[in-house]
Amino acid sequence: MNNSHIQTVPLEKAYRLITHGPTVLVSANDGQDTDVMAAAWACALEFSPAKVTVVLDKSTKTRKIIENSGYFALQIPTLKQLEMVYSLGTLSLYNAPDKLEQSGVQLFKFADQEIPVVEGCAAWILCELIPEPHNQQAHDLFIGKVIAAYADDRVFRDGHWFYHEVSEEWKSIHHVAGGHFYTIGEAVTVKDTE
Amino acid sequence: MNNSHIQTVPLEKAYRLITHGPTVLVSANDGQDTDVMAAAWACALEFSPAKVTVVLDKSTKTRKIIENSGYFALQIPTLKQLEMVYSLGTLSLYNAPDKLEQSGVQLFKFADQEIPVVEGCAAWILCELIPEPHNQQAHDLFIGKVIAAYADDRVFRDGHWFYHEVSEEWKSIHHVAGGHFYTIGEAVTVKDTE
Repeated sequence: MNNSHIQTVPLEKAYRLITHGPTVLVSANDGQDTDVMAAAWACALEFSPAKVTVVLDKSTKTRKIIENSGYFALQIPTLKQLEMVYSLGTLSLYNAPDKLEQSGVQLFKFADQEIPVVEGCAAWILCELIPEPHNQQAHDLFIGKVIAAYADDRVFRDGHWFYHEVSEEWKSIHHVAGGHFYTIGEAVTVKDTE
Repeated sequence: MNNSHIQTVPLEKAYRLITHGPTVLVSANDGQDTDVMAAAWACALEFSPAKVTVVLDKSTKTRKIIENSGYFALQIPTLKQLEMVYSLGTLSLYNAPDKLEQSGVQLFKFADQEIPVVEGCAAWILCELIPEPHNQQAHDLFIGKVIAAYADDRVFRDGHWFYHEVSEEWKSIHHVAGGHFYTIGEAVTVKDTE
């Protein structure tokens, strides 16, 4: 094996090696405040009952609102929303009270649901927080039980993404560093499973 | 807002909405057995000290080996390795003792490291398990402290991925369902940050 190309990665940059999952928006309301933030570190946790994880830094107002309310939504934004996502990920409601207006966010609610969500996304995952004080304090790790999920059928239907059939503006965006993202790419299929 | 395209997603399919992060390979050795499995649910957890999460089902031998040894590696495979990754994700060492040979895996070790890793990947993240019995039992969630990281400088260098400059065979693969994956796509940059 030719190892001449293998270089050490500084530990503080190691996260970049797996951080290019789909960037999500996290929204919440506690009766007093509403916030939406961008998060790169969200992940599925369980099929059934459906659960997800999301890492929420202690510096974010969204985290405080979720701790107060016990509910949050993850949503999958699209390339069309790139500037909005970046703005939501860099401004903080703590020092920019008009963050949502500045970022151009339009909120709505699904019928019979109280969690505010962002218009124009490809999908929405509504969650009830499973309180886990150790994970939240020690790891900034929040676990949500999925209580409802929705998707835009132009890009997700019958349980499958159709990123390979839509225009670029519908693609998911995957944060890598600073203002740099990748879009989701081409569909590939393992032989014998086509 | 035109909501006519928004459809409910069954809860048991909700994970598919955020599962398209980079698929990883998880490798481990406990002095007796060596295994490598594919995992779609891995995520960064902390910048410094660098930590990662990975969900490991109780049915996997890799999980048992990690519980025994306290160490594991995450590695980022490439499109060139698609068939191998799929094989590692569908065969189990429990009922296919020659799983690694069948899958065509070549293992090696980095200098001064004991964890076996897979040749030909784009990057490798070596981890020490942070034992968290509750997370492991209740959520199948394993937390690793990164002890070393390496990348192939043809696709990751100076802390950045260069997926936009390499041939297709180098691209990360993002599992969606069954034998279906997406590759990572195009680089896009937020205005004013270029």
